[in-house]
Amino acid sequence: MSSTSESASSLLRFFDEKRDSILDDLFTFLRFPSISTDPVYRSEVAACADWVCKYCRQSGLTAELWPTAVHPVVYAEWLDAGPDKPTVLLYGHYDVQPVDPLDLWDSPPFEPVIRAGQIYARGAVDNKGQCFYVIQALRALLERDGKLPVNVKLFLEGEEETGSKGVSEILDERSKQLKADYLLVVDSGIERLERPSVTIGYRGLTQLTVRVMGSNTDLHSGIHGGIAINPIHALVQMLSSARDASGTITIPGFYDGVVELTEEERSKIDFDFDEADYSTTFGASTAGGEQRYRPLESAWLRPTFEINGISGGYTGDGFKTVIPAVATAKISCRLVPEQDPEIIGKSVADFLQSVAPEGIEVHVDVGHGGKALRTTPNGKIVQASANAITDVCGIPCLYILTGGTIPITASLAEAAGAEVALIGYALPTDRLHAPNEHFGVDRFRLGLATVGRILELLA
Amino acid sequence: MSSTSESASSLLRFFDEKRDSILDDLFTFLRFPSISTDPVYRSEVAACADWVCKYCRQSGLTAELWPTAVHPVVYAEWLDAGPDKPTVLLYGHYDVQPVDPLDLWDSPPFEPVIRAGQIYARGAVDNKGQCFYVIQALRALLERDGKLPVNVKLFLEGEEETGSKGVSEILDERSKQLKADYLLVVDSGIERLERPSVTIGYRGLTQLTVRVMGSNTDLHSGIHGGIAINPIHALVQMLSSARDASGTITIPGFYDGVVELTEEERSKIDFDFDEADYSTTFGASTAGGEQRYRPLESAWLRPTFEINGISGGYTGDGFKTVIPAVATAKISCRLVPEQDPEIIGKSVADFLQSVAPEGIEVHVDVGHGGKALRTTPNGKIVQASANAITDVCGIPCLYILTGGTIPITASLAEAAGAEVALIGYALPTDRLHAPNEHFGVDRFRLGLATVGRILELLA
Repeated sequence: MSSTSESASSLLRFFDEKRDSILDDLFTFLRFPSISTDPVYRSEVAACADWVCKYCRQSGLTAELWPTAVHPVVYAEWLDAGPDKPTVLLYGHYDVQPVDPLDLWDSPPFEPVIRAGQIYARGAVDNKGQCFYVIQALRALLERDGKLPVNVKLFLEGEEETGSKGVSEILDERSKQLKADYLLVVDSGIERLERPSVTIGYRGLTQLTVRVMGSNTDLHSGIHGGIAINPIHALVQMLSSARDASGTITIPGFYDGVVELTEEERSKIDFDFDEADYSTTFGASTAGGEQRYRPLESAWLRPTFEINGISGGYTGDGFKTVIPAVATAKISCRLVPEQDPEIIGKSVADFLQSVAPEGIEVHVDVGHGGKALRTTPNGKIVQASANAITDVCGIPCLYILTGGTIPITASLAEAAGAEVALIGYALPTDRLHAPNEHFGVDRFRLGLATVGRILELLA
Repeated sequence: MSSTSESASSLLRFFDEKRDSILDDLFTFLRFPSISTDPVYRSEVAACADWVCKYCRQSGLTAELWPTAVHPVVYAEWLDAGPDKPTVLLYGHYDVQPVDPLDLWDSPPFEPVIRAGQIYARGAVDNKGQCFYVIQALRALLERDGKLPVNVKLFLEGEEETGSKGVSEILDERSKQLKADYLLVVDSGIERLERPSVTIGYRGLTQLTVRVMGSNTDLHSGIHGGIAINPIHALVQMLSSARDASGTITIPGFYDGVVELTEEERSKIDFDFDEADYSTTFGASTAGGEQRYRPLESAWLRPTFEINGISGGYTGDGFKTVIPAVATAKISCRLVPEQDPEIIGKSVADFLQSVAPEGIEVHVDVGHGGKALRTTPNGKIVQASANAITDVCGIPCLYILTGGTIPITASLAEAAGAEVALIGYALPTDRLHAPNEHFGVDRFRLGLATVGRILELLA
């Protein structure tokens, strides 16, 4: 029993009436192998940007390419709603992940096909499909009303899958053009179609490489065992001391300033989590976080200290009785909004130096980081998104967060001076970044109507 | 001022008079690339064994090859000293280590040359050079006296550098032929030429591979960080808990039955150790053992728990924010005589299982081990060796041990029912197992006389 509004119905009808031509155009978009991380595809990425830019113009927007040191941004706008109407910045990306292993695809990744209502192609959901329903929403509103209800800026980057380095370098100089009241990031997902939701935050990230040195050469573990300090021992002791038995991170200053959500805020978020289903799907227990938090509280609201890689000595077949000269670990911390990536990176580095055994040399490199983003369920863009989703789906919208990081978004929100919400209709089963990536035509249709309704509700 | 006996002098003279022809023959021996670990060299190992066997016959011994599943043993004997004389089993090996990196050799490894009194070749000291002075000692005695002072059995294996698997399989069936009163292992070394010594023990070994599994697939550290248990975290915690801050191993049962040397025994052993020199040479601190032991006490008399390798997740360039499915470590424990390799292997495996976090799956494989060997400074073969060294070198002989493991020796001693001593003139600077391996002609000469004198003193 749907309570969908008349406006939502008309937007859904727009898709139903133009279904074939919209999907034709989407398939053209999907056929560009716009793999941003591989220099071999540089000209294909550029051709894709050109095509999107022209498509935006044909859709009634002003559009241009913003060059960066890596791949261009497609920037489009429609600013005729008048100065009393808010400006909404819409974010997406037209680049895609690599496709290997190619032999695991049931159909070629750049030859989109529909099977059982699902569009199969690299980028079908991440993020070309979602980008494209944003453009179609603008077309639908322009066709129906002759205008948009708000001023709109569209920012489609070509580097999301490869670190957004070039984009991040142009945000300062473009900040005037990016100014907006609201930023709607359409690159997110929901847990299940029956539980539509708006994403009100993600975690930040800091990354470190640790090298622990015990000697100037690999040593024979018989001759030297009991004399020389083994750097693997040192490393495991150092890393082990960063967390206590309850999963709490013991690094001084790590939780400084971290604020717990109020009960009221917490009560609005859908922490529903099926532990049995998780354990079946991933073969993993759910005890990896701080013991006093439930799994999704831990993954969304709490920072982590994660060892992403470790190596040292010999781990091939058989044995080599060596005390290696060096051992290495890669560490990343997922961060909450009160934590600055650089400060936390330094705290972790200082901690590791402080717990290193005497006679062990420790080098820590702090790598690229990104800030967390969290917005409030009470903010206007979040409210509009939730109401639009409820309207379009006919089911009350929930609030969720994600534990991952979308580094450019926080910077973009800062450059734009905008309040943020993240929406999208990706499902955990859509095989993002994997073979047989797909996206439901039904969800494309919902996305189109949702974006249209959000813009109306913000007017 | 040397107090060398008349007999020692005559043995040294034997070398001096035949120097060129002995070195010629040694060079022939050294030219065989008898690399036992690499199947490519199988026929060269066999040719080397043939040559040694024939050389033993030419030297006045009865000699034959004992085939094994890997490489043959050269077995030679001279048993005409009479039943009232003891039988001495002499151990050495004719196989060598691989030679790479070849470009770091100043001269080709299988083209022996003498530079500044040192013979440069793979196997020069480990163990062909030392093997060969044993044979020359027998020649010298036979030539001088027309007989040997004791019954002699010579056991030269071809697998020492590759685990002695084939040899260990034939010891039982050969035990009658191997019966001896004394076993003299001539594959050892001294710390400095000014401190000649006999080696009265080495440590045993047990080896383990640990695999720690947290999930059925690598997981995204953003989405899953705070939910799934990271197996690298589990592994570092498990490994870290095996040792306390004082370096003591906390595995239950690990030290069970381990006996400390008496003050009297300890006082006979040369624990002299130059920490500053060690730190300069290896760039390593000497705090790797249990705090209450001095470095060489720790390396010779105490067992260790050493992580020889660790791996998991991503440690290449850049970052991959992954929670890996699996992490792995290779562990070895050096053991003292009271520790059984299998029992300790099982104790370590049980301990790791017991400290694994819930939800983490742990597989431990216990690999090939070997028992420790320790003999007493008061034993007859050790006394004879010490007295012979003192006589030949003209300096009082000291007692040392080694922290390494010569797995076959304990089994050989057991099969022979013999009391053991280990001698040799290798120096720590001889580059065993490394490019530019070398051995001093002066030490070859001392070795020859030493072996001859030991046999005389045992008569």
